[in-house]
Amino acid sequence: MPSTRGCILPHIEKRGIARHEPHRGKLQMSAPKKVVLAYSGGLDTSIILKWLQTEYGCEVVTFTADLGQGEELEPARAKAELMGASAIYIEDLREEFVRDFVFPMFRANALYEGLYLLGTSIARPLISKRLVEIAEAEGADAVSHGATGKGNDQVRFELAAYALNPDIKVIAPWREWDLSSRTKLLDFAEKNQIPIAKDKRGEAPFSVDANLLHTSSEGKVLEDPAVDAPDYVYQRTVNPEDAPDQPEFIEIGFEKGDAVSINGEAMSPATILTKLNELGGKHGIGRLDLVEGRFVGMKSRGIYETPGGTVLLEAHRGIESITLDRGAAHLKDELMPKYAELIYNGFWFSPEREMLQAMIDKSQEHVTGTVRLKLYKGLARTVGRWSDYSLYSEAHVTFEDDAGAYDQKDAAGFIQLNALRLKLLAARKRRTS
Amino acid sequence: MPSTRGCILPHIEKRGIARHEPHRGKLQMSAPKKVVLAYSGGLDTSIILKWLQTEYGCEVVTFTADLGQGEELEPARAKAELMGASAIYIEDLREEFVRDFVFPMFRANALYEGLYLLGTSIARPLISKRLVEIAEAEGADAVSHGATGKGNDQVRFELAAYALNPDIKVIAPWREWDLSSRTKLLDFAEKNQIPIAKDKRGEAPFSVDANLLHTSSEGKVLEDPAVDAPDYVYQRTVNPEDAPDQPEFIEIGFEKGDAVSINGEAMSPATILTKLNELGGKHGIGRLDLVEGRFVGMKSRGIYETPGGTVLLEAHRGIESITLDRGAAHLKDELMPKYAELIYNGFWFSPEREMLQAMIDKSQEHVTGTVRLKLYKGLARTVGRWSDYSLYSEAHVTFEDDAGAYDQKDAAGFIQLNALRLKLLAARKRRTS
Amino acid sequence: MPSTRGCILPHIEKRGIARHEPHRGKLQMSAPKKVVLAYSGGLDTSIILKWLQTEYGCEVVTFTADLGQGEELEPARAKAELMGASAIYIEDLREEFVRDFVFPMFRANALYEGLYLLGTSIARPLISKRLVEIAEAEGADAVSHGATGKGNDQVRFELAAYALNPDIKVIAPWREWDLSSRTKLLDFAEKNQIPIAKDKRGEAPFSVDANLLHTSSEGKVLEDPAVDAPDYVYQRTVNPEDAPDQPEFIEIGFEKGDAVSINGEAMSPATILTKLNELGGKHGIGRLDLVEGRFVGMKSRGIYETPGGTVLLEAHRGIESITLDRGAAHLKDELMPKYAELIYNGFWFSPEREMLQAMIDKSQEHVTGTVRLKLYKGLARTVGRWSDYSLYSEAHVTFEDDAGAYDQKDAAGFIQLNALRLKLLAARKRRTS
Amino acid sequence: MPSTRGCILPHIEKRGIARHEPHRGKLQMSAPKKVVLAYSGGLDTSIILKWLQTEYGCEVVTFTADLGQGEELEPARAKAELMGASAIYIEDLREEFVRDFVFPMFRANALYEGLYLLGTSIARPLISKRLVEIAEAEGADAVSHGATGKGNDQVRFELAAYALNPDIKVIAPWREWDLSSRTKLLDFAEKNQIPIAKDKRGEAPFSVDANLLHTSSEGKVLEDPAVDAPDYVYQRTVNPEDAPDQPEFIEIGFEKGDAVSINGEAMSPATILTKLNELGGKHGIGRLDLVEGRFVGMKSRGIYETPGGTVLLEAHRGIESITLDRGAAHLKDELMPKYAELIYNGFWFSPEREMLQAMIDKSQEHVTGTVRLKLYKGLARTVGRWSDYSLYSEAHVTFEDDAGAYDQKDAAGFIQLNALRLKLLAARKRRTS
Repeated sequence: MPSTRGCILPHIEKRGIARHEPHRGKLQMSAPKKVVLAYSGGLDTSIILKWLQTEYGCEVVTFTADLGQGEELEPARAKAELMGASAIYIEDLREEFVRDFVFPMFRANALYEGLYLLGTSIARPLISKRLVEIAEAEGADAVSHGATGKGNDQVRFELAAYALNPDIKVIAPWREWDLSSRTKLLDFAEKNQIPIAKDKRGEAPFSVDANLLHTSSEGKVLEDPAVDAPDYVYQRTVNPEDAPDQPEFIEIGFEKGDAVSINGEAMSPATILTKLNELGGKHGIGRLDLVEGRFVGMKSRGIYETPGGTVLLEAHRGIESITLDRGAAHLKDELMPKYAELIYNGFWFSPEREMLQAMIDKSQEHVTGTVRLKLYKGLARTVGRWSDYSLYSEAHVTFEDDAGAYDQKDAAGFIQLNALRLKLLAARKRRTS
Repeated sequence: MPSTRGCILPHIEKRGIARHEPHRGKLQMSAPKKVVLAYSGGLDTSIILKWLQTEYGCEVVTFTADLGQGEELEPARAKAELMGASAIYIEDLREEFVRDFVFPMFRANALYEGLYLLGTSIARPLISKRLVEIAEAEGADAVSHGATGKGNDQVRFELAAYALNPDIKVIAPWREWDLSSRTKLLDFAEKNQIPIAKDKRGEAPFSVDANLLHTSSEGKVLEDPAVDAPDYVYQRTVNPEDAPDQPEFIEIGFEKGDAVSINGEAMSPATILTKLNELGGKHGIGRLDLVEGRFVGMKSRGIYETPGGTVLLEAHRGIESITLDRGAAHLKDELMPKYAELIYNGFWFSPEREMLQAMIDKSQEHVTGTVRLKLYKGLARTVGRWSDYSLYSEAHVTFEDDAGAYDQKDAAGFIQLNALRLKLLAARKRRTS
Repeated sequence: MPSTRGCILPHIEKRGIARHEPHRGKLQMSAPKKVVLAYSGGLDTSIILKWLQTEYGCEVVTFTADLGQGEELEPARAKAELMGASAIYIEDLREEFVRDFVFPMFRANALYEGLYLLGTSIARPLISKRLVEIAEAEGADAVSHGATGKGNDQVRFELAAYALNPDIKVIAPWREWDLSSRTKLLDFAEKNQIPIAKDKRGEAPFSVDANLLHTSSEGKVLEDPAVDAPDYVYQRTVNPEDAPDQPEFIEIGFEKGDAVSINGEAMSPATILTKLNELGGKHGIGRLDLVEGRFVGMKSRGIYETPGGTVLLEAHRGIESITLDRGAAHLKDELMPKYAELIYNGFWFSPEREMLQAMIDKSQEHVTGTVRLKLYKGLARTVGRWSDYSLYSEAHVTFEDDAGAYDQKDAAGFIQLNALRLKLLAARKRRTS
Repeated sequence: MPSTRGCILPHIEKRGIARHEPHRGKLQMSAPKKVVLAYSGGLDTSIILKWLQTEYGCEVVTFTADLGQGEELEPARAKAELMGASAIYIEDLREEFVRDFVFPMFRANALYEGLYLLGTSIARPLISKRLVEIAEAEGADAVSHGATGKGNDQVRFELAAYALNPDIKVIAPWREWDLSSRTKLLDFAEKNQIPIAKDKRGEAPFSVDANLLHTSSEGKVLEDPAVDAPDYVYQRTVNPEDAPDQPEFIEIGFEKGDAVSINGEAMSPATILTKLNELGGKHGIGRLDLVEGRFVGMKSRGIYETPGGTVLLEAHRGIESITLDRGAAHLKDELMPKYAELIYNGFWFSPEREMLQAMIDKSQEHVTGTVRLKLYKGLARTVGRWSDYSLYSEAHVTFEDDAGAYDQKDAAGFIQLNALRLKLLAARKRRTS
């Protein structure tokens, strides 16, 4: 489809308009000169790297981030060098990821559709942020990613990029090219001397995304939601049946809504999440088999493993239960689904997400204390919690003599006035029926 | 405090106003002639029965319901007869309870404060409904319950009663009398020849409420939320460590949002919940240790066991995941916390709960199909789901060739227009900073 | 751009894919054989009629609806006949429009962005519904409309059409053709012998949409939101300065949330709205100058005249104020913005709008009674309201002796328990700071 | 009822418990030694002053605030001195009132039940704040107010006081004493040599509350909501019929959501509101006749005059319309009813109101610019608005050639993906019915 003459902005080009309809020439933006590519070092993004170079005749800068996906990054450098990347960025973003994205989200107890901990969703805006920053530093005018046209990730990458730089171009090769089958991809790779690992010749039985918060698997063998996911899909958690037969008890310390220690030992955000992943994974915690509604309109089935996050959510709810006022807690709960939806849909960098964050952060000022959890065979359960900021008052709640803390007779008036409108309704019903 | 001359409405009497302030005589409602008491047959409500008789000189009708609490009811009849109840109602309400209260609530995936399945809250309105109906049938002008002045249950009983009969009087002896210690209660019982079971001489180490949906335990040994609940508190579920070492797989069938079968066998609502309780209890599923915010203002700690309900919630989310549209599902999720709060606070019979129910029920028209779950060591997890009404479209989501079901290029326009306002914001930021 | 050989689905064709990329042939849906066009009889839709015929070689059925826009429809018939429409539908939909669309929406007190009464938004789904029904009756496989690619109306037309018939094709010529200037349009018209009214030679100074609910004007002379709209823009309301110097008092009767009479005279829905338009228009009521956020992402400025609707909203709030319980009213208010947004964005035929409607309709069961309003110089103001279903209780609210209806001392307990959590917070603050 | 021996906390005393039930002696809090009274200088609060002195034998400190109610305060000083107040505070709080209470509330466009601008509600927390602060400064242990037991104001005063000082006692004489008729009040006044203005001998035909934001009138002649409010009720606004026959155009400047200037002249918050009151009042703007749902359960009818506030709300919506992103604006709109309810119910000093405020304030960062309004015969209407921070883009919205700012073809993809779930629903319907 596209010309080889130059580098024409794909979303114009894709319509075959630019050359045929001179009167729309005004829409033809200048061709990208330099593209920053989110590069994993794997086969697909290597093909994209080459495709960008050949298709648009552009310089390509690669950006590879360690978000805790558990892969070595140095091979990506070698490969990018080999393929002629004009600059190579390799960065460890784990602390920033957990501190500025994962933890703020966990302050909200965010769950998409009641169950999903948003492990993929929350990583995308950080990647886009760095893509845009690197583009500005390198004088690049476009960024590119390897997400397909069917998923949510393209939306997340692109909304974040546009929100941070309204003039940036985003190139999504999967929506552009005609490499629509495995065979064509491999042909392209061979023709362009892109190294293909032996185990990549055949097709993977499913697709994986991983970072410090979770591993998600979807597609192919998982596409029938009636059929159990095969055991080999799970990569980060043991099967609960294989988890230790003895429960393990841990204590997580919180300050202002964020985890700061495990069993009394202070740790950085990324270290805490790493440690919780180990603990959760060992006990088979955090497996989720979910059919979810994608922003682009269809339903999809995913297998998520979020061992540390699942423990963290339970613990955060635990510490909130004694430090957060009911009014604050219920307001948070009512807005959580919307907050989670915004993150899922890719609106991290939007005014409404930032407004909700301001509201949530305000609520966390005293969410400080310690939660004791039992980890066992797939389940993390709060069994104790304490805090200097606790609002729990044994004096008020006790079945014993409360020394006057609470006057039970107040309840009569409380009920009478709460009942008044219901009585007026009942009287109307009687009167009119 | 109160006179023995007659039966003066307690909420006037309690202020000691009626006799001392003749100018407020207008407030003095006529004395109750007959009271319908929610009667368990236990010591506390037996004392209330007698206290009502002696304090107000009223006839007392007893009402004892089987809501699945797992106790024999005939002893209550004998005891009520012995104590001179003027009429005795004993009713099996299990089917009505599950069909008209539990199931409608589960259509909403209701969780209070993110975790509590509302087992106690949902039973109270049904009891009040029958109290009021019996009062009308018996010509009684008051109802009475054994809930204390510190808890939510008094509110739930009374709001429901007033919503159904605006003129009913509600007598809450725990807010009225001066039997403020165990010793005084036992003295009163002995003085009035109320039989005291031997094991009731000492104080129970905690307080229990049970029905077909759950068992809750609170108070005394559980009052320090930092301390693990002792094992003997749990009554309906085995410790996960003691649960079978082999997982069990079950299939729950749904029609219009309600469970209708287990493993292909059709069952009535109460039978299904009973069966799920057995299954869940056997596998240690549904234990919750929670600190919650009571409607009356303080926080309390409860241990809840909801084995069948926990399985049911997971399954209902599972069937909704393929049969409920995203727009419908998200709207439900946003309103769920408010719906749960209404039930928790005792507003089952309120226009807003009924409005939300109409909305939720509308959404369940096609929530029909089957969910497969794995039960193991405390955890119920959806592993498969299918339905004739499924909205899941393999054709749309597939990584394979989708035969034109979905045009990936549409995503470009979708993203561009979703991004437009974010771009305008970013352009403003650039322009003004 | 497109072939003249046959009728190729525009959203494929527009990308120039069908002929050039044989491997994507699978995406090539069958060409439309017959199109139902929403036809006003004006120049623009006449050009579309011809363009569809010439571009796709299709039969075109015209559909012209009387939604109260105040134009004669018979000229549209003559014109459609002249241009060779294969069938012509002209229908008076005013009663259906008001009864099934406007009134249900007014039950919700819907206002978009706090101010806009959704006059255009609410008409679109009805037009699409008839387009789809006619398509099914006529064996047509596509529908077409004259909305541009920048506005909300295209979205509303198309979402409604797809929601009613998932296989229907929608042709939006303004997004397809290259008639991108007034000159080109007129050239096309002349070349195709489409009659052009003399006053249509020049460009209109702004664009208008009208139906029984409102007239909206936008574009051109109105594009600078800093500049006052010129007087000649207003078409349906007099300038308040020119309205009568004497106020007029009217009474509107309601049943179950819908207006049923004016000044005691029962009328049909469309008759009531027509009458209220006269009354409101005469008194200069219902002018709105608004900048709003479009669903497609940009802001636009519109001048809306909704004389009858403005009176109706005020009256509906008035009757709700005495017949709707506070809990019901506040729940409605909280969900109104979402409901309005759904209608604005084109999701009338969506599960979530239908769920909200079920909730709203449930609330209107007793919204029956009469409201008295004062109309004067641009303002409609409720000055009295009464109902057999009133919840207003003079006995409770009176400053005079209330004969025991309300015990002021109950308020003490009510406040104490509402204050309890605030006291616990204050105590924590004191303790920890 | 109460003893004259000492000063016993009324909410205990009122139940006649303290002396009669020694076993509840633990509930008997220490008697108040000094009370700070919200004192207007009028007859009612003068009676309260004396009643507190005689009933409890306490010192009474008076606090009189200028909140813009339009009365001279010095007479209150003389009267308080005469009656032996132990300290007298008279303060001009107008700037604090507008800056820290009214303006933050207007950032939210708060309307209770769609119509009420919360003029009384927003003043109460400020009064309570000063009462509590003065109590702390003066070593007083109680505060007192003149609100009755039927209204919202008692709740607002007391929730605010308890939220600021959990140990403060609040004395609400209207709920305590037996001065239940006008005659008794006057007798008490005469017996205690409290001066009675001649025009206070008879009963006022309605009750009034006023401050810089509004005047409210309710009760007596206004108690029948079917009957028009008599003209003499209105005090702050002319009848629109009597307003100038020429419209007046004004410009209001905003910075970060707050009004800062009128017609280009910078002014302090209270000065702006004063000036807007003059302008609005002169043009008959801001009259509201409302039946509302009180927090204590019954409905009441009020006549509100909020001339400046009504203009300000219109203007604030106007400036937001061009400076606030759609996502931000809609989120605000969805939460506004809850925010307004919190203020109405007296929860200004609650975590959830503060959380919502944080969210709202976050949204106002760029709500800076100018709005032009037309004031005429009861109506304030935005007719123009401009801002350096405007998000309105003529380039995007224009009907003219947009030079490539917006690609209409993007709309096709946008609609397709928004429609996808609706199509899947429609396909299911067809398949299953």
